[in-house]
Amino acid sequence: MGARGFAAIVLAAGKGTRMRSDLPKVLHAIAGRSMLGHVLAAVQEAGATRVDVVIEPGRADVAGEVERQAPGAQVHPQVERLGTAHAALQACAALETGSDVIIAFGDTPLVTAETFRRLSEALSHGAAIAVLAFDAADPKGYGRVLTEGGQVVAIREEKDASEEERRTHLSNAGLMALSGSHALRLLTRIGNDNVAGEYYLTDAVALAVEEGLRVAVVSIDEAEAQGVNDRVQLSVAEAAIQGRLRRAAQLGGATLVAPETVFLAADTVIGRDVVIEPHVVFGPGVRIGDSCLIRAFSHLVECRLERGVDIGPHVRLRGGAVLEEGVHLGNFVELKNAHMHAGSKAAHLTYLGDSEIGARANIGAGTITCNYDGVSKHRTSIGENAFIGSNSAIVAPVTIGAGALIGAGSVIVRDVPADALAVARGRQTTLEGLAKSKRATMLAAKAAKAKTPAP
Amino acid sequence: MGARGFAAIVLAAGKGTRMRSDLPKVLHAIAGRSMLGHVLAAVQEAGATRVDVVIEPGRADVAGEVERQAPGAQVHPQVERLGTAHAALQACAALETGSDVIIAFGDTPLVTAETFRRLSEALSHGAAIAVLAFDAADPKGYGRVLTEGGQVVAIREEKDASEEERRTHLSNAGLMALSGSHALRLLTRIGNDNVAGEYYLTDAVALAVEEGLRVAVVSIDEAEAQGVNDRVQLSVAEAAIQGRLRRAAQLGGATLVAPETVFLAADTVIGRDVVIEPHVVFGPGVRIGDSCLIRAFSHLVECRLERGVDIGPHVRLRGGAVLEEGVHLGNFVELKNAHMHAGSKAAHLTYLGDSEIGARANIGAGTITCNYDGVSKHRTSIGENAFIGSNSAIVAPVTIGAGALIGAGSVIVRDVPADALAVARGRQTTLEGLAKSKRATMLAAKAAKAKTPAP
Amino acid sequence: MGARGFAAIVLAAGKGTRMRSDLPKVLHAIAGRSMLGHVLAAVQEAGATRVDVVIEPGRADVAGEVERQAPGAQVHPQVERLGTAHAALQACAALETGSDVIIAFGDTPLVTAETFRRLSEALSHGAAIAVLAFDAADPKGYGRVLTEGGQVVAIREEKDASEEERRTHLSNAGLMALSGSHALRLLTRIGNDNVAGEYYLTDAVALAVEEGLRVAVVSIDEAEAQGVNDRVQLSVAEAAIQGRLRRAAQLGGATLVAPETVFLAADTVIGRDVVIEPHVVFGPGVRIGDSCLIRAFSHLVECRLERGVDIGPHVRLRGGAVLEEGVHLGNFVELKNAHMHAGSKAAHLTYLGDSEIGARANIGAGTITCNYDGVSKHRTSIGENAFIGSNSAIVAPVTIGAGALIGAGSVIVRDVPADALAVARGRQTTLEGLAKSKRATMLAAKAAKAKTPAP
Repeated sequence: MGARGFAAIVLAAGKGTRMRSDLPKVLHAIAGRSMLGHVLAAVQEAGATRVDVVIEPGRADVAGEVERQAPGAQVHPQVERLGTAHAALQACAALETGSDVIIAFGDTPLVTAETFRRLSEALSHGAAIAVLAFDAADPKGYGRVLTEGGQVVAIREEKDASEEERRTHLSNAGLMALSGSHALRLLTRIGNDNVAGEYYLTDAVALAVEEGLRVAVVSIDEAEAQGVNDRVQLSVAEAAIQGRLRRAAQLGGATLVAPETVFLAADTVIGRDVVIEPHVVFGPGVRIGDSCLIRAFSHLVECRLERGVDIGPHVRLRGGAVLEEGVHLGNFVELKNAHMHAGSKAAHLTYLGDSEIGARANIGAGTITCNYDGVSKHRTSIGENAFIGSNSAIVAPVTIGAGALIGAGSVIVRDVPADALAVARGRQTTLEGLAKSKRATMLAAKAAKAKTPAP
Repeated sequence: MGARGFAAIVLAAGKGTRMRSDLPKVLHAIAGRSMLGHVLAAVQEAGATRVDVVIEPGRADVAGEVERQAPGAQVHPQVERLGTAHAALQACAALETGSDVIIAFGDTPLVTAETFRRLSEALSHGAAIAVLAFDAADPKGYGRVLTEGGQVVAIREEKDASEEERRTHLSNAGLMALSGSHALRLLTRIGNDNVAGEYYLTDAVALAVEEGLRVAVVSIDEAEAQGVNDRVQLSVAEAAIQGRLRRAAQLGGATLVAPETVFLAADTVIGRDVVIEPHVVFGPGVRIGDSCLIRAFSHLVECRLERGVDIGPHVRLRGGAVLEEGVHLGNFVELKNAHMHAGSKAAHLTYLGDSEIGARANIGAGTITCNYDGVSKHRTSIGENAFIGSNSAIVAPVTIGAGALIGAGSVIVRDVPADALAVARGRQTTLEGLAKSKRATMLAAKAAKAKTPAP
Repeated sequence: MGARGFAAIVLAAGKGTRMRSDLPKVLHAIAGRSMLGHVLAAVQEAGATRVDVVIEPGRADVAGEVERQAPGAQVHPQVERLGTAHAALQACAALETGSDVIIAFGDTPLVTAETFRRLSEALSHGAAIAVLAFDAADPKGYGRVLTEGGQVVAIREEKDASEEERRTHLSNAGLMALSGSHALRLLTRIGNDNVAGEYYLTDAVALAVEEGLRVAVVSIDEAEAQGVNDRVQLSVAEAAIQGRLRRAAQLGGATLVAPETVFLAADTVIGRDVVIEPHVVFGPGVRIGDSCLIRAFSHLVECRLERGVDIGPHVRLRGGAVLEEGVHLGNFVELKNAHMHAGSKAAHLTYLGDSEIGARANIGAGTITCNYDGVSKHRTSIGENAFIGSNSAIVAPVTIGAGALIGAGSVIVRDVPADALAVARGRQTTLEGLAKSKRATMLAAKAAKAKTPAP
């Protein structure tokens, strides 16, 4: 792309008081991934050559998330809170490499990899700094980005702006790229001679202009620039990310009947000619093959559906569910750590846990695999073409052979060989007329009780 | 606040023909509370010293709702329908007290307590009348509020307005506060010399101006001023109230992943660091403690969740469900009048009704409490640390002791002592090769049947 | 209405590459009906005297859909793709009748019957052609409809338009009505002297103007004019149709608490004083009587609910479910081909398939009709006032008589006479102290296993 590569410094030490949460702000999730995870994914996708993250001291949870989302990234605690430039300088190891550097924020999760690439490219074209800006519908309160001939001449805070300058809608998004030749010097030169006594990253722009260096501007939509400071803004960011994910799925050839009611995870993979009914929720780790049908009110996490699978409504797939080609699941069915081979079916009110279900096996309504005995989990194995009668309980560990047939309402506690018939239920006793007399007795008892004064 | 207190007269006798309903318009619900209930809540929260409601004669349902939502309020039937001023005069007992009075409408449910307070305060500052107005995006059809120097000089109906007056967007919302010194006199003076022969409340403004009295204006958003005349408008009002409730929950520290898909009741209480997945419905009477997780497709009414409870997806909680700290409910689980003690679990496909579940008890998949015998309801009691095997039916009344273990697929009809093991199921009979032959027989029968001509 | 009747030619041969689908574009569904079906319904409702559809050669699926949605319509394959005028001429049999003709598109599914009527009427008033146009918010890229004195003088493509002409926002929707006196001649006269070498329907306008004929314009909203070329646009069209359906249901007297979360089919019939909670999905073939309550997370297809039925949340009704007056279904209940007579109930976790349930019968929680034996489906019949104990399996074919009582947890395999009591379950065995020792054994085994090194 002509860009030279860049180091990313992500500032992620913010307190996030307005979130009203025990969880650090940057760990709050959007589309099943932390805000910080979104930022780390974007800078890595944009080609960051190294990633440094400045965090609140002692936050093992944040450090752990950095390691998960950007393995090998350096973490730097920010002991004192002296402003954004001070925070960025905590990662001086990155600045000392002489690479171009992009300073991003852990709480602006909507900035895309493409935007990070554009910032980096602006430096390749000779700018010392590239500032990120957006055209604000209502710029009130934002620092204005003042330009001449396409170059930034100043970033003016609202309170310092002239009436004419206030009419500018181009507003400072806060993020910035700095050329490797200038980054460390400019950041170090920033002072704290202001009311708050803080070191502001934005001041790098004035210093660069003062030195006669070029400052470029990269523009994005106002929506992309938005930060998250409370949970209303968190839900606005969620909606923006969901909009992107849904649109990508649709343009890839999936029908989302009502995209606004389908919630995807950042890593959801959806094939071609998939139809998703309204009201479906995808957690992380889901892969849907081509030509699947996902009916309404389904909830899927960490599972894989191969071609032509047809599920729901009201299906719940948990970790380790694998549905091979042509599997059908009907309503009120839950799978956890269960592998259904091609063409097998479970149409109603079923729980399959820690199970292997053979090809073309039919699991009757109300079947439950009893995989937990209160102490340990055990596995169930059901052979191909087996037929499990409705309302059966399969007490694991147990193996049911291929082609076996289990009578309805059975409690299966021992292995069943292939092609065998197993039944484990009580015999039917029918007592003529007894319903009538029993009902009369119950009604009489109830009437008697109603007459008795409460004790 | 400097306000002097006020009496509220709520006009709630409208027919509501466009609702196309057997239910009186003001009883249609928004966020689980009748429209009338919302108005009564707002005037009471604003500090109304008495509440009078004018209703359609003979509507015991409306009178009952008044008594529930504003105990002690007076109800006045409006026998003849002669206009809003005539309706207000049905509550002349309130007018004769000499208190300031606010006249509200049972079908404008979005007006807030804050707005009622502002109307009352406007009187404290010397106005004889305070009219409620809004800036209409398209004022066509609305009466315009004409002001000079911040005081109302007239309310002009569209048809009587000059071209210049029509350019005014400030429109009459209908609600009005009248000073106790003038209210009864002004209302009584209103005539019915107009095409419809009706007594219009709005005419009080002209009379006050004529008398040289001050008429103030209190402005609100157009949305807040909207009335409900049909079910499209009812859903618009629902959306507005939901927006307020969701925002309050979010700012209080709850994550609503997709607030537009979560429906709250007016009285829902939600703690801090609660996470609510998309697609959740709350009916009246729900309290959620801190740090709970409510997964998608859950439906909660009249229940209480203590700290750290984790439920869903697909959970249904009905009246009297109490979940103590750390309780976990999984998918397709229903509770009704059931108390689960700390740390107990019911993870799949379970119905617990009229039950007490001890601390740390584990209720297996497919467990059903048989609480109804066709005549009466009975209670189930399960002790702490008990383990109920999957697919069991617990026939109430029955008590299962602490630490007891129930074998999978059992039908429990008698009490089980603490630490006992109870099993109630058929023995497994396995017949080798029989599935194969039985299947062959069934297929042959089917083929034979297919050949037989339909009778 | 003064219209003279018209023949409809529907162009439905488009490839729809951007849909990224194996299904022809016009068969993609909106509100449970194909796009083509919507167009065919609208032209028929508008009174088309004959319907001709131009399709891709060899598409039996499209031809079949035409036959279903417009029985008797003629289908014409378009072998070569030489433009819209060429496509229309494939239906020259229709043009030769001398009737007025409307040329519609299979991928603009939002055009209403009313719009087709207006196009037809414009011809009745003497126009040779009536073009359909809309006022585009951003007309860029659209052909502009240039008018003088209310008559069309030209349709100008963007690239050929003068600066002034580009300021016109009135844009060509593509659809057109042609008078029977001129249609065949004008279409035949259209040439292909353009870059693409295609025959464009729009050119008929220039020819008509050249001949001194009148060309009228019929205006619609931009939304109604939108075509569907990819799955994002498909979902936009779905939203538009859903908006119409919901609004009609609301104005007819149904409360949709959150209309934006309720998905209707084009043929859904909903009575008066019906309340539909949020998050409900209706497939085709559903009729809901007056005063029904449909709770959240319900999914209904091909079923009929009579007056005062109360279902959900989490109910799933499939083909052939009939619920007579006052039936109640609770959560996690599925019906397929099941007829519930007046006042019967199934409140929890139940599957009723191929069943007849008598009046006032009570189906206990967890009841399952075992209607499939792996080879054939069989019927269950339950008499009026019968009581089926919880967690029972009813193995069809079987008949349970009126007033019969089935004990909880039974597996019923033989008929039960009226008023009889039937029980089919194991006896309870209670072993004191055994839970304690069994648990100790299991824990010891687990500990031992944990110590064993993995093989």
